[in-house]
Amino acid sequence: MRPVEGPTIWTEQDRRAVNALRFLAADMVERAKSGHPGLPLGAAAMAYVLWTRHLKHNPYDPAWPDRDRFVLSAGHGSALLYALLYLAGYDLPLDELKRFRQWGSRTPGHPEAGLTPGVEVTTGPLGQGLAMAVGMAIAEAHLAARFNRPGCPVVDHRTYVLASDGDLMEGISAEACALAGHLRLGKLIVLYDRNGISLAGSTELAFTEDVGARFAAQGWHVAEVPDGEDLAAIDRALREATEARDRPSLLVISTTIGHGAPTKAGTFHAHGSPLGEEELRGAKRALGWPEEPMFLVPDGVRERLAEAAGRGREEEERWHKLIQRYRAAHPELARDLLRRLGGELPPDWDADLPSFPPGKKGISTRKASEAVLQRLAQAVPELVGGSADLNPSCLTWLKGEGDFGPPPGPADRQGEVGGGWSYGGRNIHFGVREHAMGAIAVGMARHGGLQPFTGTFLAFSDYMRPPLRLAALMHEPVVFVFTHDSIALGEDGPTHQPVEHLLALRAIPNLTVIRPADAGETVEAWRAALLRRDGPTVLILTRQDLPLLDRTRLASPDGLHRGGYILWESAPGRDPELILIATGSEVHVALDAGEELARDGVRVRVVALPSWDLFERQPRDYRDQILPPQVRARVAVEAGIQLGWEHYVGLDGEIVGLSSFGASAPGPVLLQEFGITPAAVVAAGRRALNRVAVRRGDDYHEQAGP
Amino acid sequence: MRPVEGPTIWTEQDRRAVNALRFLAADMVERAKSGHPGLPLGAAAMAYVLWTRHLKHNPYDPAWPDRDRFVLSAGHGSALLYALLYLAGYDLPLDELKRFRQWGSRTPGHPEAGLTPGVEVTTGPLGQGLAMAVGMAIAEAHLAARFNRPGCPVVDHRTYVLASDGDLMEGISAEACALAGHLRLGKLIVLYDRNGISLAGSTELAFTEDVGARFAAQGWHVAEVPDGEDLAAIDRALREATEARDRPSLLVISTTIGHGAPTKAGTFHAHGSPLGEEELRGAKRALGWPEEPMFLVPDGVRERLAEAAGRGREEEERWHKLIQRYRAAHPELARDLLRRLGGELPPDWDADLPSFPPGKKGISTRKASEAVLQRLAQAVPELVGGSADLNPSCLTWLKGEGDFGPPPGPADRQGEVGGGWSYGGRNIHFGVREHAMGAIAVGMARHGGLQPFTGTFLAFSDYMRPPLRLAALMHEPVVFVFTHDSIALGEDGPTHQPVEHLLALRAIPNLTVIRPADAGETVEAWRAALLRRDGPTVLILTRQDLPLLDRTRLASPDGLHRGGYILWESAPGRDPELILIATGSEVHVALDAGEELARDGVRVRVVALPSWDLFERQPRDYRDQILPPQVRARVAVEAGIQLGWEHYVGLDGEIVGLSSFGASAPGPVLLQEFGITPAAVVAAGRRALNRVAVRRGDDYHEQAGP
Repeated sequence: MRPVEGPTIWTEQDRRAVNALRFLAADMVERAKSGHPGLPLGAAAMAYVLWTRHLKHNPYDPAWPDRDRFVLSAGHGSALLYALLYLAGYDLPLDELKRFRQWGSRTPGHPEAGLTPGVEVTTGPLGQGLAMAVGMAIAEAHLAARFNRPGCPVVDHRTYVLASDGDLMEGISAEACALAGHLRLGKLIVLYDRNGISLAGSTELAFTEDVGARFAAQGWHVAEVPDGEDLAAIDRALREATEARDRPSLLVISTTIGHGAPTKAGTFHAHGSPLGEEELRGAKRALGWPEEPMFLVPDGVRERLAEAAGRGREEEERWHKLIQRYRAAHPELARDLLRRLGGELPPDWDADLPSFPPGKKGISTRKASEAVLQRLAQAVPELVGGSADLNPSCLTWLKGEGDFGPPPGPADRQGEVGGGWSYGGRNIHFGVREHAMGAIAVGMARHGGLQPFTGTFLAFSDYMRPPLRLAALMHEPVVFVFTHDSIALGEDGPTHQPVEHLLALRAIPNLTVIRPADAGETVEAWRAALLRRDGPTVLILTRQDLPLLDRTRLASPDGLHRGGYILWESAPGRDPELILIATGSEVHVALDAGEELARDGVRVRVVALPSWDLFERQPRDYRDQILPPQVRARVAVEAGIQLGWEHYVGLDGEIVGLSSFGASAPGPVLLQEFGITPAAVVAAGRRALNRVAVRRGDDYHEQAGP
Repeated sequence: MRPVEGPTIWTEQDRRAVNALRFLAADMVERAKSGHPGLPLGAAAMAYVLWTRHLKHNPYDPAWPDRDRFVLSAGHGSALLYALLYLAGYDLPLDELKRFRQWGSRTPGHPEAGLTPGVEVTTGPLGQGLAMAVGMAIAEAHLAARFNRPGCPVVDHRTYVLASDGDLMEGISAEACALAGHLRLGKLIVLYDRNGISLAGSTELAFTEDVGARFAAQGWHVAEVPDGEDLAAIDRALREATEARDRPSLLVISTTIGHGAPTKAGTFHAHGSPLGEEELRGAKRALGWPEEPMFLVPDGVRERLAEAAGRGREEEERWHKLIQRYRAAHPELARDLLRRLGGELPPDWDADLPSFPPGKKGISTRKASEAVLQRLAQAVPELVGGSADLNPSCLTWLKGEGDFGPPPGPADRQGEVGGGWSYGGRNIHFGVREHAMGAIAVGMARHGGLQPFTGTFLAFSDYMRPPLRLAALMHEPVVFVFTHDSIALGEDGPTHQPVEHLLALRAIPNLTVIRPADAGETVEAWRAALLRRDGPTVLILTRQDLPLLDRTRLASPDGLHRGGYILWESAPGRDPELILIATGSEVHVALDAGEELARDGVRVRVVALPSWDLFERQPRDYRDQILPPQVRARVAVEAGIQLGWEHYVGLDGEIVGLSSFGASAPGPVLLQEFGITPAAVVAAGRRALNRVAVRRGDDYHEQAGP
């Protein structure tokens, strides 16, 4: 909501409500015998001021699109958030607070989006929440630019963050905040709970920079609140922050961790363990709070927070009326906005995807992806994203769709994508900030109304694993594009050549990894990525050109949607003797090898397996049809680490892949030197056939083991 | 060396040498048809001033311990570095420059330590070099504090970094530089090549912060050099930086990318591709350089750089004399220093490691590790490290061995480890900066004289994969400790519970991952980690207590050094019918299950497999002895992702593990709910036995496939 007008009189009632927040949280931790009491005791006052006087939200409709977002980046303070949600009237009963950190409760150790109404994002790994909040603020600015019309500000909300010392030490927050300052995201407001204590001790141990000056250097409005118990000062600072419309705001609010605790306040002993019964009683006494009962909520406290919630409900009603007017005045825009907020793709969005007839010169899958993206740009307006300074390499841009940023944009426009600079621009220049890029994209998705995508080299997926993981955990349909997907990228050498990355990504639960084999599969990979609504998708693309598979002779790339399919076999209708399994660029290697083996009379099948994850989701009979259990002579081919492929080839199969880092040389030389060749696959196929034959004879002793 | 005294007269000879550097590099890129000409053309002048007037180095002894370190953090500028090394007289002939980026050359696409004499660290992934340089400066400060004596400054050198815009956008550089400022590392000097261009375009697109102000806020000395071609100004700024002894220095040096190139200078087109013949000729003309021949080195140029090298040789001779005096005056210190610089462990370093007799109450492996560390602290003085704000949780501290930092240390001493504050302190407080911690530790190792270690939660290994990878690539023996190694950590929930991380780490080539099963194996794990001299080791430890295995009944934990060993079997001397394989805490689950199956008459073997990597390095006959190839009824048990274990259990085995993220609840509840129990292993064992029996009967159709 807009800040309540005029000076606020803060009363004893307010103090009591702050203490109720404090001790609900501390009691939760005490009851669970686990958790973090320190932050809630110290930061309850700022949270109270924010939630009662500034935050625009409606506990009865946590999904209201135009609500302000509140991100507890310091996710270990979850007990404070649950206390706020409960007191404000969200669907989170007191019983759930009493089951803090227990199996099946809606009050897990760190906040989990989707599990608890009112929790905007899953936080805990430090720095991630703040970076996701930058993504939310980007989403708001973009949607506002695209959809607001004079008199109809249908998108108009703020993003608030409560961040800790730890958040601000993490590099990801430096990246995200640098970008937020650069982009002048005026509706992003960070409350920095400076309590001077982190898990291991005083921040004097490791964190003595001038945080305010650092943020000012990055274009932020910075204000200090020396006493974090001073409700009026916090309120004032928040009002000023809302007025600094051309810059994000950092409020440096000094607090005492474990405020009130007689011996532990101001020490790291209050950070991450229950206070203990005596200390908790002492804290209650010190702040004039009854020692009993636990989970006390005195009369008037819920009303205090509910009053603000009531205003939020009114605001939402006003918004619905606004939407009615908007619908009348701008019916197409309104339809599009509501469709996007509902997470539905446009009708016929994929009717016009490009096709790549065989016979043409080869094309890299990154270039095929670029072509798909340009069509998608037209059909799917919610597609917004960019790369970490790698547009010319990853080709993850939407040409002519504008650069995201405050107009008029930089005087030096090198690298722009065309279409001008505005918050309506759909190309985000993330800078060399892979980690923040990942989290920002997740925050954009979490905000709603956007289909974010990112781009960098596969080797640098290592820089962004924490947000990849959070996207998977939160089921957010972000599309992460990684190009330059193997040693075949060539001369840049081992630092830039992914080896272990495919497996490391496939290991993340609920992350769909797709590595298409040609332009045709690349089209289907993008289609699959956009169709997936319950989790993120990773697209793995080549730098080098690949032949266009002749789909009249080979199976259709539609098979990609089942993860794996029979691309070709030498004796259709008969059981194969040997199965070659490959992904991406190595599908071509497997095909060549398969044809050679077939010439020698082997009944060989080539399986394209672009996505392990999609394949594993198929019913067993489909999987058994593609990889018949009795056919154990199997060879996997992939220019990545061999480990992991035993999942498909078992102990009797062969894996043509890498077991070391790459090297610097032209790509074709490397493939030859590292043995990713049809000849190597043919030899491996013969070894596998021989091994299986030997095992058939039960002559176990003559053959090599696992 | 100490800067040459008095004002330097910069002559036409110097200009020519700068141009020789420029065009050697540009010719390399042109010849290779691949590489980055822009940075060398723009930054040649600063590199020249640094290498001729400041850098203390001896091309004839690149391993001289007291040399200054030069880190090209912007590793894509490798051609400039190779040109410097060649002209300065390192063992890198011109022919190698002509084989830039080719198979088997010593001039790979990005600098690779160990491959090219004079290359200090492998760089390329942006930000890593700068953070590793902070580690080198830490190492220097520590060794100086430990070893220098009045009149005997045996450790006294600087660390210079050449960094790009991209380096400074990366979060890791924010983390590392914040720490460097906090630690007041006065001998760290960063030359920031501000050329205003990154790969994708102008830095105006995404990087508009006031970099100098940001560094000043973090305690750095900052100086601007507005014209990167002004040799005298660069020289002056370097002199001032060396005088700012109480702070690290950032020199913001403005340059033009692709300096001289007629149409591409100052644009991103000069960044990452060869200029092309015409443009290169144009650049040569513009700077008065002969267009032919390629790789031209006019008379006098090598002499110019060799002159500085000659001074370096004299400095090394003086240092050797100093060491002679030091040896006489401080024989024990000298012996210790030279031993450490040679990378040798002290004699009998592991004679006094603790033992944990069975019968005692259980103990977590993190606590066992803490006990080992305290003994190692006494025996191995080069052991220096710490955690990313998790000392009380990871227990990776050396009690009483002092905190690393400028004396007298913070007034608020919460969290200190005892022993006072000094650069001789062996406990580094990294702050909540996992990524920089990893790279700093690698830099410390690379510097020499130290055995670094780090500590954080296993889930947060995701924050530090890029330096883990570089450590493996560079064969640096860093010990990375990761605790809280499974869902059994309990209430903190899925954000803090590793699932995919064990596999993701095992996937990195040359990284030894060890997950000990009890205190006894933890002792051996540390021993193995310190014995490993050719690469990094990861130790994976529990939060929860584990029973102490009765090693009179079970095999000795010495087996850990072979990666895997037979811990127990029900029918020793006979081939097992069923093999249970486990690591870490799940070894106890497997033992319980094995005993139950044995009571049912199954010939069962329990294999402890603490390190896949060590196991894979064993000869095949050892591996076949532990896991006989003909025994296909196998069950793997690990509280992590199932994927990957097929490497050991194949298509007929069973895996008791996870296929999803964890949840927030007490650890024992989670193990039960996720089925990591003896009962689940027993059931899986029966399934495996049955499946193998069916397969023996060749009745393929009735059994489940992969």
